[in-house]
Amino acid sequence: MPLLKPLFGISEICVAHGIKDAVLCPGSRSAALTLAFARNPKISCEVLSDERSAGFVAMGMAIQTDTPVVMVCTSGSAAYNFSPAVVEAYFQEVPLIVLTADRPPEWINQYDGQTIFQRDIFGKHVKKSYELPADYAHPDAQWHIERVVNEAISLSQKHPKGPVHINVPIREPFYPDANEQYDFNGNVRVVKNPEIKPTLSNVVWAELLEIWEAAENKIIAIGQNSEDLDAELTALDQEEEVIVIADVISNVNTEKAIKSHDTFIAKLGEAESEIDLLLTFGKSFISKNLKQFIRKNKPTHHWHIQNHPDLIDPLQSLTMKIEMDPKEFLRELSETCSIRRMRSADEAEESEFKTNWLVADEKAKIYVDKFLASADFGELKATQLLLEQLPESSILHLGNSMPVRYANLFGTKSSKKIQVNANRGTSGIDGIVSTSVGQAKKTDKVLTCLVGDVSFFYDRNAFWNANLPNNLKIVLINNEGGNIFRIIDGPSKQAEVADYFVGKQTKTAELLAKENGLEYLKASNEEEMKNALKALYEANKASILEVFTDPENDVRIFKDLKNGFSLI
Amino acid sequence: MPLLKPLFGISEICVAHGIKDAVLCPGSRSAALTLAFARNPKISCEVLSDERSAGFVAMGMAIQTDTPVVMVCTSGSAAYNFSPAVVEAYFQEVPLIVLTADRPPEWINQYDGQTIFQRDIFGKHVKKSYELPADYAHPDAQWHIERVVNEAISLSQKHPKGPVHINVPIREPFYPDANEQYDFNGNVRVVKNPEIKPTLSNVVWAELLEIWEAAENKIIAIGQNSEDLDAELTALDQEEEVIVIADVISNVNTEKAIKSHDTFIAKLGEAESEIDLLLTFGKSFISKNLKQFIRKNKPTHHWHIQNHPDLIDPLQSLTMKIEMDPKEFLRELSETCSIRRMRSADEAEESEFKTNWLVADEKAKIYVDKFLASADFGELKATQLLLEQLPESSILHLGNSMPVRYANLFGTKSSKKIQVNANRGTSGIDGIVSTSVGQAKKTDKVLTCLVGDVSFFYDRNAFWNANLPNNLKIVLINNEGGNIFRIIDGPSKQAEVADYFVGKQTKTAELLAKENGLEYLKASNEEEMKNALKALYEANKASILEVFTDPENDVRIFKDLKNGFSLI
Repeated sequence: MPLLKPLFGISEICVAHGIKDAVLCPGSRSAALTLAFARNPKISCEVLSDERSAGFVAMGMAIQTDTPVVMVCTSGSAAYNFSPAVVEAYFQEVPLIVLTADRPPEWINQYDGQTIFQRDIFGKHVKKSYELPADYAHPDAQWHIERVVNEAISLSQKHPKGPVHINVPIREPFYPDANEQYDFNGNVRVVKNPEIKPTLSNVVWAELLEIWEAAENKIIAIGQNSEDLDAELTALDQEEEVIVIADVISNVNTEKAIKSHDTFIAKLGEAESEIDLLLTFGKSFISKNLKQFIRKNKPTHHWHIQNHPDLIDPLQSLTMKIEMDPKEFLRELSETCSIRRMRSADEAEESEFKTNWLVADEKAKIYVDKFLASADFGELKATQLLLEQLPESSILHLGNSMPVRYANLFGTKSSKKIQVNANRGTSGIDGIVSTSVGQAKKTDKVLTCLVGDVSFFYDRNAFWNANLPNNLKIVLINNEGGNIFRIIDGPSKQAEVADYFVGKQTKTAELLAKENGLEYLKASNEEEMKNALKALYEANKASILEVFTDPENDVRIFKDLKNGFSLI
Repeated sequence: MPLLKPLFGISEICVAHGIKDAVLCPGSRSAALTLAFARNPKISCEVLSDERSAGFVAMGMAIQTDTPVVMVCTSGSAAYNFSPAVVEAYFQEVPLIVLTADRPPEWINQYDGQTIFQRDIFGKHVKKSYELPADYAHPDAQWHIERVVNEAISLSQKHPKGPVHINVPIREPFYPDANEQYDFNGNVRVVKNPEIKPTLSNVVWAELLEIWEAAENKIIAIGQNSEDLDAELTALDQEEEVIVIADVISNVNTEKAIKSHDTFIAKLGEAESEIDLLLTFGKSFISKNLKQFIRKNKPTHHWHIQNHPDLIDPLQSLTMKIEMDPKEFLRELSETCSIRRMRSADEAEESEFKTNWLVADEKAKIYVDKFLASADFGELKATQLLLEQLPESSILHLGNSMPVRYANLFGTKSSKKIQVNANRGTSGIDGIVSTSVGQAKKTDKVLTCLVGDVSFFYDRNAFWNANLPNNLKIVLINNEGGNIFRIIDGPSKQAEVADYFVGKQTKTAELLAKENGLEYLKASNEEEMKNALKALYEANKASILEVFTDPENDVRIFKDLKNGFSLI
């Protein structure tokens, strides 16, 4: 057996499990892993030098393909540079196979170059951490390697999906001899381990339906979610009186979905605050107002439907946790409701509760539109103009801090069926552009990344040596620093706000665009923005539109918008 | 008591322990920590946005001041972005106080923004990890906080020095009210805990001296070291026949120190390979030839002198580990030898063994000089020209991969007393420029950073929002990628070398310099390089000298140099 065959076999097992993409970061210790994927004709590879950015690119690819992406790095601090992406993937539930080359155990902590304590390096932020044997001479070693790789890949795809880590100690020689041939003939052991569909027993369903039918004021609220639930929600809506609140990252685009809740929810009257049953789907909510509203007005029943073992209760009101697939749950629910309704021959009538919510949503929408029509140009208006101009069926990646908050004030237009993503697993500013690059690479759709200047420059190595795809469109709102600190109450009242929080920065993206061969557009007012957006989407090239806004102005506009709304 | 007083007290305890510097990364959860240091008149603060770069800047400051530097970040993936610097500091043994703001425990894993599992996040790469209480109401809580901070600071400074982590859960409100005053009157508990000086018993000393005296062929080899051992080594040299091998990162500048060992050591004859006693000081060695030489020619005795509890034996020849301060050990040794010699009235004579080593060193030096006199311009020659032109008593920070290897072929000129640093803890390419920025900020001396293009662009956020000091001089060798992969044997023979290892990149630093207001110089041949070096050191401004060399040429020159030497 050629010495490195067990390592080359890893890529074959990956292929057998449906993996198609690998992100490789150059290194010598990791050479056999690199070659295993580079030479495998069924794997498409990206080579990126900065592991931090590379990790997010890999995650972006996995988000877009819903398939694990392999990441390879060499030994030493390289693995730690993967960690911001690994932790985001863990909480965003994105499957990644993280392969880190390592010294064999006897060389750890011996002042040898690029050697750290890599075992379990990602702590609780991977679903499981494995270590391969360093010697392959014993036949059991190959069985060990194949077993571990099979398990790791299956595990990454089971709900909750997420990253798995395989630490790979590698002895010299790192490189195959010229006469060693590794063919990719599928001669590896593959053990499939498909996910089992969790179902509720009839007894429990009966209990749930009893509560469901008895509940008058019903709300479904959906946080970060990438599954298309529109058909199931629409079917349910035809049978039942239920309000659907869709955060901007919920990817819910049903006709009656409420999207302006962030503006009106804190102003609702007592009658609209009495919730008999709340169903939640998805992960985190953007809207702080929504979270506070539910915490304050605890529903009689609150079911959270998610295939996840942890008791996660950010609304502090959970009464029932249902560990099954949301789509499956909604389908069963609407089918059961439909049958019951047919039997009872009742008509679904819009309740006052629902009407009031829908009216409030409409009022909020009109208010925001009207406010913006007369508002000065700033990041709020820029966001609105962008959302209006997004191509149909395109992808929107929302940056953290302000972009995702602004976007949640409007929501995307349901009819446009925009796919919305955001790194809300940890809500970091560290890999927004890189994630977008990874997503854009795995789709023909236009991908727009809306990002603030601090996040943009933080992650500028996203542009370093990636082949940037033509469908990548970056809209950068540059107001010279982390302006969120001027918007939220606490820091804005401190003398140190400018120097220690906002971190004023005066860079623009123009030289960066030049350096990286990107199309560069800019805008400082509404007309320029409209023209630039047109040009942005017409350009058949990766492009940046830099929008300059005044930070103090942005604060004033946002506060005016927040303070000016009344339901009465 | 004002609510946040215990957190403000942390900066006062730091001051009482002699800490003067803090690197603050903006965040809201961490606001009280930020303000505690920003408002403390005895702390000097840097505000940096990219935690990865900020971590290395802090480490560079701590290297230069030999005093712990505080790092503050907010909750979430920010902490992970500190990790490349933390792990380098751990293995390079640099004291850092890492303060990470966190949510209180009940909010962990609850889909709340910027929340990960931060407890113990740095694994084994900190000397100890602490977590402060989230509530301060009980009087014991304040005692707890003060005790932990006192212990952590002391621990970071005890040998082996290193980073300590204090995770700080913080509840809202994060910001003090306008009417809350925090004075820095020193009204905090300070518990000092100075390091105890480890000494050997007389019995052990007697045993050691017996071996020492019986040994004829004695070598002292010094790896990465920042302590000035020159006086002790010179004193010893006057009493005893001992060879001193000084790697370029040993900071040894005695008259007779051998610095060309990398060139000649593999060619030594049998007589020069018989070592009776080897003493090693410091951490890792750059020279692979040196390491292989010792592993092959195991000395009869090998003592490693270092105040460190772990059994670290990279030369695979250790027979005695002496856990005391190297300076102290050398002083005691030379004093004892001096007394004995006076008593015996022997004269120290240069042995054949020593002479042969010194002759070999001289031959190697002459060979390299002669080789370079006629060699084409390339990164080898550029390194030599730079080392020649370094201002006296200046600082040289050597990048990893090739710069540190090239420099080790020449060594610095002993009479110039250059301080040499390199991130050899993990030998990563991730924070070389940032570390140099941090070092330069804490000295008036000229600091030159010699770095390759991949490392340079990897760490480009070092330039983002730091106030770059005028004494910072960066010499960037740009040969369009990680050319080390063409130099080492394995990858250079693979078809994939260019695309998957070297990672060709065609950026230059010109636009980066423009963007960041740095003086920019360039050179492509010897004459340009000489002129540019002159301009570099005359410029009263942070400057970059970009040296363009041909990658294939660089490989050829290096191989010719390596292959052409013979001792005969």
